[in-house]
Amino acid sequence: MNSKSFNPPTRILMGPGPSDVSTRVLEAMARPTIGHLDPVFISMMDEIKQLLQYAFQTTNELTFAVSAPGMAGMECCFANLVEEGDKVIICKNGFFGERMKENVERFGGIPIMVDDEWGKKVDLNKAEEALKNNPDAKVLAFVHAETSTGALSDPESLTKLAHEYDCLSIVDTVTGLAGVPLKVDEWNIDAIYSGTQKCLSASPGLSPISFSKAAQEKIKNRSSKVKSWFLDLNLIMSYWEGEGGRSYHHTAPINALYGLHEALLILKEIGIENSWNKHMENHLMLREGLESLGISYLVDKEDRLPQLNSIFIPDGVDDLASRQKLLNDFNLEIGAGLGVLAGKIWRIGLMGSSSTKSNINHCLESIRKVI
Amino acid sequence: MNSKSFNPPTRILMGPGPSDVSTRVLEAMARPTIGHLDPVFISMMDEIKQLLQYAFQTTNELTFAVSAPGMAGMECCFANLVEEGDKVIICKNGFFGERMKENVERFGGIPIMVDDEWGKKVDLNKAEEALKNNPDAKVLAFVHAETSTGALSDPESLTKLAHEYDCLSIVDTVTGLAGVPLKVDEWNIDAIYSGTQKCLSASPGLSPISFSKAAQEKIKNRSSKVKSWFLDLNLIMSYWEGEGGRSYHHTAPINALYGLHEALLILKEIGIENSWNKHMENHLMLREGLESLGISYLVDKEDRLPQLNSIFIPDGVDDLASRQKLLNDFNLEIGAGLGVLAGKIWRIGLMGSSSTKSNINHCLESIRKVI
Repeated sequence: MNSKSFNPPTRILMGPGPSDVSTRVLEAMARPTIGHLDPVFISMMDEIKQLLQYAFQTTNELTFAVSAPGMAGMECCFANLVEEGDKVIICKNGFFGERMKENVERFGGIPIMVDDEWGKKVDLNKAEEALKNNPDAKVLAFVHAETSTGALSDPESLTKLAHEYDCLSIVDTVTGLAGVPLKVDEWNIDAIYSGTQKCLSASPGLSPISFSKAAQEKIKNRSSKVKSWFLDLNLIMSYWEGEGGRSYHHTAPINALYGLHEALLILKEIGIENSWNKHMENHLMLREGLESLGISYLVDKEDRLPQLNSIFIPDGVDDLASRQKLLNDFNLEIGAGLGVLAGKIWRIGLMGSSSTKSNINHCLESIRKVI
Repeated sequence: MNSKSFNPPTRILMGPGPSDVSTRVLEAMARPTIGHLDPVFISMMDEIKQLLQYAFQTTNELTFAVSAPGMAGMECCFANLVEEGDKVIICKNGFFGERMKENVERFGGIPIMVDDEWGKKVDLNKAEEALKNNPDAKVLAFVHAETSTGALSDPESLTKLAHEYDCLSIVDTVTGLAGVPLKVDEWNIDAIYSGTQKCLSASPGLSPISFSKAAQEKIKNRSSKVKSWFLDLNLIMSYWEGEGGRSYHHTAPINALYGLHEALLILKEIGIENSWNKHMENHLMLREGLESLGISYLVDKEDRLPQLNSIFIPDGVDDLASRQKLLNDFNLEIGAGLGVLAGKIWRIGLMGSSSTKSNINHCLESIRKVI
C-alpha cells in the first residue's frame, strides 16, 4: 500500500452530516493530549456539561457526551430505559424510527409501532391512540428532526401526551440540536440524544445526551442490570459527576472533547436563539433558490427542518452521476435518499458552520449546472 | 462560567495511558473534516484496515477500529461471541478480568472465573483445569497485558489450550499492541481488541479489533441477535467491507480516524519488531534507574510488561501528594494503583511516543525529588 499521510480534499459539506468543521474546532482538536483524570481535563469536562445544558436548554444534572457517535446515544437511552418485556411505543416517520425498533427488541422490550408516512411529521392523534390502546406502555419514543426525510415533529406535544399516559419520552434530536427550537426543561423531555456532527459542527464521534430526574429515577430503580457495560448510566454517572474525584470508567476521547468544547463555546457566543434563527433564515434563502430552479420539497412547508432540505430529484436527472459531479467538479457533498427514498430525493444540509449564504449560492449554482 | 477556549497545560504522559500524542498525529486530526461516505475517506479506511492488520500481524478480513474507546472493543467481542447461557472461562489476574465478567453476565453468559493473584501472569495449569472441568465452555478470555498490574501473559499458549478444548479465545491487548510481541495469525487468536491511546500513541476514542474466520463464523451463525445494535458485527461488517459501496451504519469519528491513520503510519515506518524492541530497551533503562533509587517492582522480572512498570510506592511516601507534586511541579503524569492495588503501587507507562530516553531521565529525576 501507498504509505502516505492522509490529506483530505477540500469539501463543502451540505449533506445530512457531517457539516463543515470550523478552523477553531479543528485547531482545538490538535491541542496536546493530556490525561483523562487530570484535574485540568476534568474542569473542561465540567464546562462541557454546562455548555451542553445551555444547548439543550436544561438544568438536568445527567447531561454529558457519550464517548461514541449519535447511534450510541440512541442505544444508551434504550439500553438504560428499557427492561425485558417493557412496551415501548415508537412513532416512526422515517429511517431512524426503524432503528429505535431494533434497539428496543435487542434489549428485550416490545416495540409498538405507530407508522407515519416518510416525510410527514409524527401524527399526534395516532400517537395518542397507541397510548390509549397500550395502557401498560412505559415509553414513547420519536424523532424530533428526521435526518432521513427532513421532517420536524413536535416534542412538546408528544411528551405532554406521553406523560398523560404515564410514559417517559425518548427523543432523537441528532439533527435537531442547535438547528431548531428545543427546550428540554420547558417541554419536560425525559431522555434526549444528539450528535456532534450536525448543527454543532464538531467532528463526529460523540453523542450529547440528557436525562430528566424521572428518567434517572427509573434507571436507578431498574430490576435488572443494563445490558451494556459501556453504556450503563449507573456507572457513567459516577465518572461524570462523582464526588471526591471521578472513578475510572473508560478513557474519554480527549481530543474529540476539546473539539466539542470549542464548538459549544462558538454556539454560546452566537446564542442559541440566534442559531435557530440563522438556520431558518438560510433555509428560506435556499428554498427560494431551489424553487426558482423548479425543484420541489418532500416535506410540507410548515413541517420542514430548516437545516435539512429534502428535495425531489428533478425528472430525468441521474442521481448518482449528478452527486458524483457535484463532489468531483464542485467539491460539494449533498446527501442521497435513504431507504424508501433512495433515488428519489436529495438531502441538502444547512447545518452549523455549513449554513452560510456563500455556501447556499455555491450549492444553487452547482445544482443548476448538473441538472 | 468562564467561556474560554481550552488550552491544556504541557504534560508528559507516563501513566497507564493516554500516552504522549506526537505532533504528526495531532496535526492529522486537525485536517478538514470530509464526509464518512466520501470515496476518498473510504480509501483511507481501507488503508487503516491494512495498517491494523500489520500492527496485529494478521490477515483477518474482519480487522477494523470500533468507533469508541477500548472498553467498547471489549464489549464488542463479548456481545458478538457470547449468547444466552454460554459458558465463558475468564482468567482474571487484575482489574480488567473483572470487567470481562461483567460483560459476560450482561449478555446472558455464565462466567467461570479462574483467579490469579494481581501482578502474576495467567497460570496455564489453572486455565487448563477449568477447561477440563467445563467441557461445555465456549470461550476462554484473558488479558494479554494487564493495565492494572503490568503483568504479561502468554496468548499463544492460552489460545492453544482453548482450541484443544474447543473454545475460542478472546484476548484483551489494550496495553499490549505495538508494545510487546503479538502475532495474531501465528498464535491463532480468535478475537482481540486494543486501544489507540497506549503504544499506538493516538488520541483515545477508538478500539482496534480483529476476528479470526472461526470467530466470524460463530457470529454469522448466532441463534439470537446481538444485544447491541451499535456493536453488532453483522451490521458493521457491511459498512467496513461492503461490496458495491458501503451501506450506512453510523457516522465514523472522522478526525479521530485521521489521527489513527497517522499513528499507524508511524508504526509502519518504525517497524513492528523495532517498536517491540524499543519498548524493551527503554524498560531496561527505566528499571535500572528505579532499582538504583531502591524501588522494587510488583511483577516478577520475567513477566513484566516493558511498557507498563508497576512499582511499590516507597515506605512513608504519600501516594496522592507525591503524584500531585509530580504533575504540578514536573508536569509529569504517572498512574495510581487500581482496585486492590490503590495506594500500594504506581504505574509508570513507557508507551509509544512517551517511550523515550529523555522522558525516562525526567521521570527518574522527578521521582527522586518527590520521594
